[in-house]
Amino acid sequence: MRALLTGFEPFDGAAVNPSWEAVRLVPGVQTALLPCEFGTSLERLRAVMLEYEPEVVVCVGQAGGRADVTVERVALNLDDARIPDNAGEQPVDRPVVPGGPAAYFATLPVKACVAAARKAGVPASVSHSAGTFVCNHVFYGLMHLIATEFPQVRGGFVHVPFTPGQVLDHAGPSMPSALVAEALTAIVTAAVMVRDDLRLTGGSLH
Amino acid sequence: MRALLTGFEPFDGAAVNPSWEAVRLVPGVQTALLPCEFGTSLERLRAVMLEYEPEVVVCVGQAGGRADVTVERVALNLDDARIPDNAGEQPVDRPVVPGGPAAYFATLPVKACVAAARKAGVPASVSHSAGTFVCNHVFYGLMHLIATEFPQVRGGFVHVPFTPGQVLDHAGPSMPSALVAEALTAIVTAAVMVRDDLRLTGGSLH
Amino acid sequence: MRALLTGFEPFDGAAVNPSWEAVRLVPGVQTALLPCEFGTSLERLRAVMLEYEPEVVVCVGQAGGRADVTVERVALNLDDARIPDNAGEQPVDRPVVPGGPAAYFATLPVKACVAAARKAGVPASVSHSAGTFVCNHVFYGLMHLIATEFPQVRGGFVHVPFTPGQVLDHAGPSMPSALVAEALTAIVTAAVMVRDDLRLTGGSLH
Amino acid sequence: MRALLTGFEPFDGAAVNPSWEAVRLVPGVQTALLPCEFGTSLERLRAVMLEYEPEVVVCVGQAGGRADVTVERVALNLDDARIPDNAGEQPVDRPVVPGGPAAYFATLPVKACVAAARKAGVPASVSHSAGTFVCNHVFYGLMHLIATEFPQVRGGFVHVPFTPGQVLDHAGPSMPSALVAEALTAIVTAAVMVRDDLRLTGGSLH
Repeated sequence: MRALLTGFEPFDGAAVNPSWEAVRLVPGVQTALLPCEFGTSLERLRAVMLEYEPEVVVCVGQAGGRADVTVERVALNLDDARIPDNAGEQPVDRPVVPGGPAAYFATLPVKACVAAARKAGVPASVSHSAGTFVCNHVFYGLMHLIATEFPQVRGGFVHVPFTPGQVLDHAGPSMPSALVAEALTAIVTAAVMVRDDLRLTGGSLH
Repeated sequence: MRALLTGFEPFDGAAVNPSWEAVRLVPGVQTALLPCEFGTSLERLRAVMLEYEPEVVVCVGQAGGRADVTVERVALNLDDARIPDNAGEQPVDRPVVPGGPAAYFATLPVKACVAAARKAGVPASVSHSAGTFVCNHVFYGLMHLIATEFPQVRGGFVHVPFTPGQVLDHAGPSMPSALVAEALTAIVTAAVMVRDDLRLTGGSLH
Repeated sequence: MRALLTGFEPFDGAAVNPSWEAVRLVPGVQTALLPCEFGTSLERLRAVMLEYEPEVVVCVGQAGGRADVTVERVALNLDDARIPDNAGEQPVDRPVVPGGPAAYFATLPVKACVAAARKAGVPASVSHSAGTFVCNHVFYGLMHLIATEFPQVRGGFVHVPFTPGQVLDHAGPSMPSALVAEALTAIVTAAVMVRDDLRLTGGSLH
Repeated sequence: MRALLTGFEPFDGAAVNPSWEAVRLVPGVQTALLPCEFGTSLERLRAVMLEYEPEVVVCVGQAGGRADVTVERVALNLDDARIPDNAGEQPVDRPVVPGGPAAYFATLPVKACVAAARKAGVPASVSHSAGTFVCNHVFYGLMHLIATEFPQVRGGFVHVPFTPGQVLDHAGPSMPSALVAEALTAIVTAAVMVRDDLRLTGGSLH
């Protein structure tokens, strides 16, 4: 089973991106580094999907301020950037794919992925919003590629906390990359192995 | 211009629901109280829409833990209940409408609504997740009703904080109902008046 | 019974200080506005205590980010400023009163004050840290004045949240000044009436 | 230079206490496990101080919900327990030492300790409240022992986050014990080496 994990380049002035710091530590998978840019990130993703022909694709991004690893459930057809991307672009209320559906659900078994991460000792939960910046852009673009070009692929998105080094003096939550990598390993394994997702609640009241 | 605002009954053992406490204070609109139940809430909503023939519908619900008034941008075709509803039902990973689209965007001018609430002196922001409980259920059901039966109606959903009385000893955020009602009044007015939404960023990084 | 409430001038670039916005609304008490400056704030406090001869003194300050009204329990003999005060002074690790005790406890009945605020419908709790900026400076200075010059006075400090107007676009907690004023009224009344504090837990695990 | 680190037994139904999980990993120091009980914890601390004759004592405890390692600055002469200790005792508003001073400052170089932890790659900050439960009880008792029986000892208290395993499904902050141990190693080393604390701000506004 071929699996592809992608991480992002640093953005917003950061020295590292915790997604790439963790993705590069996951054994036995193909990995790719995506630019933190609207548009070109998806071109790069499509190119590596054509090159590696993966059966499972998990894109990973930074969710600064979150304390656990979150498996995203839904991608929105919406770019609405609070800050510019690394190319200086800052779209407001623009669709990722004009004419595309409002949203795609991840086709990973999200509950099983969360359960696998926890079983590996890593705090994790389901998230119902991947934001409206480049992470969501790549997530939506991935699911649209799957819907239109790669129907045999299962795909989804995982957000990861800051590394400890990013918040030395911030008193905010963080997670070491080695621990995140254990969660990603468990998540990819579950994504490959689990055909029918678990019937566990992972809902949020709001 | 006819506008309909709905609030919810209390749930999860609470004595009040801040959505209804605020909705009942908004002048010049039709109001309706919905049960906090999957299914019957939507039957009631459809009945009052048929009765009042509103041009704008804003459903309002409680988002305990949030500090500001949030105008929801997207409704998901997903029921995933962390707790039972008031009828004891707790669906897991079930669509609101089998065969419906993954999501609907609100057709309110969400940026203009947020700007109007702030101009009225009330902290407000755009939210990209209404959760997966009865609030999202009603929000998705409303947008599906609009898409299929009431195409001339503009609709959306607003989440409001706890009342002060709900968190007397919790050290959590709250907002008095009178202040929430000022935000709702401003939001409904903007929903009625603004044809083309403002081009303001309201995005979230994750 | 004569009671004195003090509030602070705005600081750190803010347009208002919620402490003064609320203090000015409390009926039946003497009020004074203190500069947000190390040193001169205490000179002003001593002057108004000499002028008004209060029996109860409650100093009030802004605790941006807190969601409820907090009755402070302890003042530290420590100035350690993360930002400059309004006169540009930024002391680091300096005692408020050289040779003074490490700390003073408030002589208000803090548990009864919290209970009174809650009974008035306002979220409130005991706090065990007033920080190390001008608020704590004034609190410690007040208790030192009481210990050395005004032994018949009961005194303490109350921290209050941002006003809604200060966080219109921050998604952070706030409380309207009228509600804060109700809490302060209840607190001052309890401070005047209650001789022996209630035996209620108000502790924090850390 | 002899250094003593103490951790606590689990409490409040937990399976582990992150303080002891980390303390036991610190090389080159004496360690002791304290019961999470008012009174007996201090008897045990005094016994190990007499046995080991340390020059530096750092007591460590759990601060569930905090995201970084916090070096406590001040211990209060106050027991006020929100929950019972492991012996079922739940004191309210009782001094740790009747007739003792209101507070003691840590005699560790707290700013240098925080700087050392950060230099070791671990998020850390100064805290101005150790709460009013057994942690503060032991901290105050330690400083009182130093003031009255062990004047040559330098002492202080460090609070540490939950372990990841304690919050697998809580979405709250955590820190692996190995990372906490690196911080504790750096803190003890700084406590032993640094005579005059750094002149760095570590203050809090409230």
